[in-house]
Amino acid sequence: MSHLHRFHLPPDTTDAGILALPEGEAHHALRVARLKSGETVEVFDGAGRVWRGAFEAAGKHEAVIQVVERAFEEPPTPRCTLVVAALHRPGAMEELLRRGAEVGVTRFVFFRARRSERPPRRDGKWERILVEVCKQCGRNWLPRIELTEDPIRIIASHAGTACIAAMTPEAGPVSSLEVTGDLLLAVGPEGDFTAEEVAALTEAGAVPITLGAYTYRSEVAAVLGATLLLQRAGAFA
Amino acid sequence: MSHLHRFHLPPDTTDAGILALPEGEAHHALRVARLKSGETVEVFDGAGRVWRGAFEAAGKHEAVIQVVERAFEEPPTPRCTLVVAALHRPGAMEELLRRGAEVGVTRFVFFRARRSERPPRRDGKWERILVEVCKQCGRNWLPRIELTEDPIRIIASHAGTACIAAMTPEAGPVSSLEVTGDLLLAVGPEGDFTAEEVAALTEAGAVPITLGAYTYRSEVAAVLGATLLLQRAGAFA
Repeated sequence: MSHLHRFHLPPDTTDAGILALPEGEAHHALRVARLKSGETVEVFDGAGRVWRGAFEAAGKHEAVIQVVERAFEEPPTPRCTLVVAALHRPGAMEELLRRGAEVGVTRFVFFRARRSERPPRRDGKWERILVEVCKQCGRNWLPRIELTEDPIRIIASHAGTACIAAMTPEAGPVSSLEVTGDLLLAVGPEGDFTAEEVAALTEAGAVPITLGAYTYRSEVAAVLGATLLLQRAGAFA
Repeated sequence: MSHLHRFHLPPDTTDAGILALPEGEAHHALRVARLKSGETVEVFDGAGRVWRGAFEAAGKHEAVIQVVERAFEEPPTPRCTLVVAALHRPGAMEELLRRGAEVGVTRFVFFRARRSERPPRRDGKWERILVEVCKQCGRNWLPRIELTEDPIRIIASHAGTACIAAMTPEAGPVSSLEVTGDLLLAVGPEGDFTAEEVAALTEAGAVPITLGAYTYRSEVAAVLGATLLLQRAGAFA
């Protein structure tokens, strides 16, 4: 699957045998990838539907796919949620989304922690980054992005293994963690969670884990922690 | 250790109780971090020596550290070498160095693979990136960077676990790999290794491993693979 050009369609696309590419995708196909009519391409809707078909230029700015093959892919398991405090450094949120989606994070939840400089604000770039990663990696489920004012509720209602990246003495390594069901990891902002926040999140069910002896920027800690949890749960096999 | 300002000195620095900061570090201390005389800072030479001391401005452009405390840190174990084909995309080598050093890669070896567009060429930025990461993470050993024309020799002479990220059917997951001693992972360029290269590297002792069902850019595969091997070897505890 990996060397085919991949295009993304909205999840509400109707499949009547011919799929019209959205403007941006058509532009990319015609002007950047310079696809020729007849070339086999792959299309995914980010919610499990995948098509193979023949690319066809339909005018200067339009392009369609003649569907040849359809498939539906089940959502990846385990699901992996990152609950991350809003970060203020430019690019940190984008790096988090890109790197997290690459390794298999399926849901990003942002909130304002005590030491976040401002509340999270959804950026149009975010979804484009996730689409880009899914195209590249061959993932057919687009990760979800949510903003919340109540991270405690999200952790308390999580079925599976919930953790918090913490520098507290009782934090254990991921390698000795019993992992079941879906995964969740909470990560603090620059300057980390306050002791009260750690207590509240732990109280809600998040198990403190350590990532080792070194200090990581929040977005690096989040991706590293998610990678270790996913590895522990048998992903990457 | 994590909230102290950290500065880097060359490994041939003589310690006579006062350490003069190199020009770039002095500039950063005086103009960017705006440190005040008397503030406690940390200094490392990238080869295990670490100092704590009092910062002192010594003129407009010079700064020194009055040493209060000295330590020597043993090199990290296991060592982890990435043997990576030269990548041609701008920024890919830098991303590899940054992300690799963050998770604990201790040595980067670059070579020209059959599908590398050009031979690797050392860039002055590379060491600055590694210094930056070590300052941030609290690592006191600077990773090494080598260029080679003979990756086979490096793999054949490796004592420990050597792997190659490969899409071959016999590639197994890292989670079922027996890991001993130092780690090494070979990763191909854009377009991957040729079958002949995989055969030669495997013949030299590299065990084929898979990173799962998805397709990663070379620099992402290298960092993900190194992370999984380091996790398997008990790092991050």
